[in-house]
Amino acid sequence: MARIERVVADLYLIPLPEVLSDSMHGQMSVFEVVTVRITDSDGATGMGWSFTCGTNGAAAHANIARDLAPIMIGKDADPIEARWRENWWRLHYGGRGGSASLAISAVDIALWDLKGRKAGLPLWKLLGGFDPQVPVYAGGIDLDFPLEKLLKQTEDNLAKGFRAIKMKVGRKNLAEDVARVKAMREFLGDGFPLMVDANMKWTTDEAIRAARRFREFDLVWLEEPMIPDDFGGYVRLVREGGLPIAQGENLHTLHEFGHLMQTGGVTFPEPDVTNCGGITVFMKVGHMAEALNLPVTSHGAHDVTVQLMAALPNRSYMEAHGFGLERFLNRKLEIRDGFATAPSDPGHGLDFDWKGLETLRA
Amino acid sequence: MARIERVVADLYLIPLPEVLSDSMHGQMSVFEVVTVRITDSDGATGMGWSFTCGTNGAAAHANIARDLAPIMIGKDADPIEARWRENWWRLHYGGRGGSASLAISAVDIALWDLKGRKAGLPLWKLLGGFDPQVPVYAGGIDLDFPLEKLLKQTEDNLAKGFRAIKMKVGRKNLAEDVARVKAMREFLGDGFPLMVDANMKWTTDEAIRAARRFREFDLVWLEEPMIPDDFGGYVRLVREGGLPIAQGENLHTLHEFGHLMQTGGVTFPEPDVTNCGGITVFMKVGHMAEALNLPVTSHGAHDVTVQLMAALPNRSYMEAHGFGLERFLNRKLEIRDGFATAPSDPGHGLDFDWKGLETLRA
Repeated sequence: MARIERVVADLYLIPLPEVLSDSMHGQMSVFEVVTVRITDSDGATGMGWSFTCGTNGAAAHANIARDLAPIMIGKDADPIEARWRENWWRLHYGGRGGSASLAISAVDIALWDLKGRKAGLPLWKLLGGFDPQVPVYAGGIDLDFPLEKLLKQTEDNLAKGFRAIKMKVGRKNLAEDVARVKAMREFLGDGFPLMVDANMKWTTDEAIRAARRFREFDLVWLEEPMIPDDFGGYVRLVREGGLPIAQGENLHTLHEFGHLMQTGGVTFPEPDVTNCGGITVFMKVGHMAEALNLPVTSHGAHDVTVQLMAALPNRSYMEAHGFGLERFLNRKLEIRDGFATAPSDPGHGLDFDWKGLETLRA
Repeated sequence: MARIERVVADLYLIPLPEVLSDSMHGQMSVFEVVTVRITDSDGATGMGWSFTCGTNGAAAHANIARDLAPIMIGKDADPIEARWRENWWRLHYGGRGGSASLAISAVDIALWDLKGRKAGLPLWKLLGGFDPQVPVYAGGIDLDFPLEKLLKQTEDNLAKGFRAIKMKVGRKNLAEDVARVKAMREFLGDGFPLMVDANMKWTTDEAIRAARRFREFDLVWLEEPMIPDDFGGYVRLVREGGLPIAQGENLHTLHEFGHLMQTGGVTFPEPDVTNCGGITVFMKVGHMAEALNLPVTSHGAHDVTVQLMAALPNRSYMEAHGFGLERFLNRKLEIRDGFATAPSDPGHGLDFDWKGLETLRA
């Protein structure tokens, strides 16, 4: 048995290449990245991380360094479910989500990476294996872009190999959103996969009204138009809006996903591996979705997520979004004709440029 | 307008007088306390805090010191709802519960304290005012106590003025729990208010089975027998178990309480002002409960909570539980013939022995 010998957590602040904005998070200029590196008694290593758009990073770091690391040392790294459960209960009082879920996610990714490296298997094969070719979409954070800039960004995304694109909605007036979506549909042509994301801006009635107005533009989905807590509202939206609905980037527990899917409030569950509870929870969400005949999409950390989507037969489009982190990773996600390929190196196959990150230590 | 000038957050580790245990949190020897002191431009101050049973404290401290304090400075301290909402959205990504809710709670308590002090009103009057006499119960953390020690503790609680008592259940076999509850009922006599608390130990079916076995002992309520996430299970338990059900100490958002009450999965909602989102959320939970004709109980921080229960016409028993913190407070909750009285000093009227706490700084 290989025991966990070291758990090292670090916090870095990554400036974004340009200030981004969406309807509820306001302006974002810095992303926080919390990394965790685990070494076992064989000298094998695994690496995981979580990220935020500017807050909760120091909290998640404290959760790993102070609360989780001490109870992990000396434990067997192999039974990840057992470690996950210990970590969940360790952080339960005052946890059940929030930074505790980010911390558990980062640790869980590191343990799966360690397992994959030791087995000599890429995660997508370790997790069952379906198809390394994963359809992706470009997720723009472009709510405040003038139309011209939005179309230019779209042109760039097509040139980069994207064959599906998501844009933000939730401007001051719905009419503005409708005009922008109409312009994008005309620019992209009939049948091109187009999604819209309202980032929790609306009430349920406003979301239903918007969904009905957007119907004519043949969207793949409308994403997170209300706060994620409004489970009853999402059930109404699916029934009355008439559009497919993606939601989940702000859900932080398996139970929240279970409840959302069970009640029928989502048609594209959208976990983020860095905040839903890690690979362990992401895969369970994917499997429950399959049982309910729902496609799965994703949010964040595409470099890890491509491995998970490649293992899920019901995977839909994966969101591709680097948030400035890609320049510190040893490998960039390659997009070709709308698809990314899950790499075949053991584990997730990723490593950071730790020297480069060091200059950004919080 | 008085602007917020200083927000000081501190973290202390409070050793418990003796190691406590319940069915899911394991052994607890140290409680973490996160304090926040707010000073406005008039020189007025408000103080709030949150606590944990050993983890998430450093995370909540980081949330206040790094994430919330910088955006609060310079803002008007008076519109608490506006400040609450800013703080909620500031921590939303990676938040929506967990340490973010503890942080928001502590800050919110401090802002209400500040408001009360400036108005010269105790919180219970500021919040509407009902009756300063609040019925209380003694919450024992006594799962592993031998029966003799349990009865001795009960005798002590009666001598302290308690006229309602809660004991832990969730031992290895239900038969043991039944025997202990039976002994307590015999010791206390018919009609004495007795509650039991299973701390999330059971599945829904196990909880229903236990509830049915406990029926003959005429309990005030059975508390949190399953994980709080199991909303559907709680609906079944209320319908099939045949006992009143308390739940809520591990719910961290207004929406979780809303959902639980709306679906009928609770008969005694039980918010904790230090982790549900503060006084602002505690009162909203109480008001929704009143609208649904439900009595409200509470968890934790009885020194602040007595003020809130005294403002709620539908208040039931308040949990009295010091967790070792009472020896650092300027005033102890006085229990007389089953009731505590909300003090009449402005705000919550509490202050810590900061010099004493200093020796326990984390």
